[in-house]
Amino acid sequence: MSGKPKLIYFNGRGRMEPVRWLLVAAGVEFEEVFLDTREQYVKLIKDGSLMFQQLPLVEIDGMKMVQTRAILSYIAGKYNLYGKDLKERAFIDMYVEGITDLMHMIMMFPFSPPEAKEKNLALIMERATHRYFPVFEKTLKQHGQDFLVGNRVSWADVQLIEAILAVEEKIPAVLLGFAQLQVILSLNIQELCSTKTSRISCERNCEEIIMSPCYTNQDCGVSGELSSSRCLFNMKHNGGRIRLVSCKTLCS
Amino acid sequence: MSGKPKLIYFNGRGRMEPVRWLLVAAGVEFEEVFLDTREQYVKLIKDGSLMFQQLPLVEIDGMKMVQTRAILSYIAGKYNLYGKDLKERAFIDMYVEGITDLMHMIMMFPFSPPEAKEKNLALIMERATHRYFPVFEKTLKQHGQDFLVGNRVSWADVQLIEAILAVEEKIPAVLLGFAQLQVILSLNIQELCSTKTSRISCERNCEEIIMSPCYTNQDCGVSGELSSSRCLFNMKHNGGRIRLVSCKTLCS
Repeated sequence: MSGKPKLIYFNGRGRMEPVRWLLVAAGVEFEEVFLDTREQYVKLIKDGSLMFQQLPLVEIDGMKMVQTRAILSYIAGKYNLYGKDLKERAFIDMYVEGITDLMHMIMMFPFSPPEAKEKNLALIMERATHRYFPVFEKTLKQHGQDFLVGNRVSWADVQLIEAILAVEEKIPAVLLGFAQLQVILSLNIQELCSTKTSRISCERNCEEIIMSPCYTNQDCGVSGELSSSRCLFNMKHNGGRIRLVSCKTLCS
Repeated sequence: MSGKPKLIYFNGRGRMEPVRWLLVAAGVEFEEVFLDTREQYVKLIKDGSLMFQQLPLVEIDGMKMVQTRAILSYIAGKYNLYGKDLKERAFIDMYVEGITDLMHMIMMFPFSPPEAKEKNLALIMERATHRYFPVFEKTLKQHGQDFLVGNRVSWADVQLIEAILAVEEKIPAVLLGFAQLQVILSLNIQELCSTKTSRISCERNCEEIIMSPCYTNQDCGVSGELSSSRCLFNMKHNGGRIRLVSCKTLCS
């Protein structure tokens, strides 16, 4: 349990995805174990690895950490992504909690019954554009900085970018009317792309990916200087959009 | 917004209750504003007091804090209830997150449809006794200390006591078989009762309350040395059980 953090989860985004993002933002390399069978999961419970019988599990610094928020808090604290004092941390926490509420709606969306899909999508749109995004747009506009808290990247920025991309995936035009968010989305992706260890998860359409020096697009049949990069997880087509998840060695 | 923290919420436990508990554990006096009407709530939204249009709201140290977990994290950090280092904080966070999951089931229980009540209660019992309480029982037994982390009271203990009492309220015999939890319940209640500023929320039956020097029992018609104490919130009968919520000046 020494060395790189080891992330143990199903082969999907789910509750592990913000952990991947935050580690990437921190510039920390990590390993992943994907569970394929129920037996593997039951084994983890039986050997006492899962405190509350739930994934995600992250082995880090000799601990078997569970509970997404606890894991994120530890990473944010260890890698200086959690503000310079209690008050900055308070704002980071408030922003993170709001974003987590929005992400919860998105995470639950695939489980909506067919007759509720349209209504639930409308609710995500309404909440994103009337409850959550306006808070961040206003904050960024008021202090004129590129990051939400303390003029430097924090857990809150990383989680916000993940959330924006997750909403955009469902509602492509959702950032219309949020000029500041458009700017920080671009800036933060550049910032995250410049880390040398691995890549963030993101959803961009093919043109955007081709335009970005950080992304390659094997599935679109585009070859370029980065086309040999290995993705840690997968790249998959999704209605003309590409999912790039924690791609490693891009830009390195 | 200086001086005592001001807690603004509906007149009920809900998402503000753990904040009350933690402030009491920290020995911090606080003020409360209870909202009675929707107009009061809408006014708070309109004047920009509620970052994400939701209660609870706590005015503290010049901030208008929202999101229960962010508020609790700030209080725990400020009042030294959050461990001595990152690793202790990691365990406190994991415990708190597990307890919060259990409390969420309890908080949602009253909204169960009648036909689902029995099943949901059985699920609470099952999760409490097979998923959550065993973790804490084992931890306490292994290190032989009175508190979960670092041999001193932390946010995790406070939230655990609140959760145990909340489950006991529904399932009185739930602690049978959890000897360590019975001990720390008693110890922690004494500890919390010894703070001078106000009292924790708790549910004990009349006999227990009469036996405890910390509690009085106006509603049972018992008068004693403490019968003139003022409760911050309310004391109400509940099938022979009494709810004492943050009673002030008891034992002072």
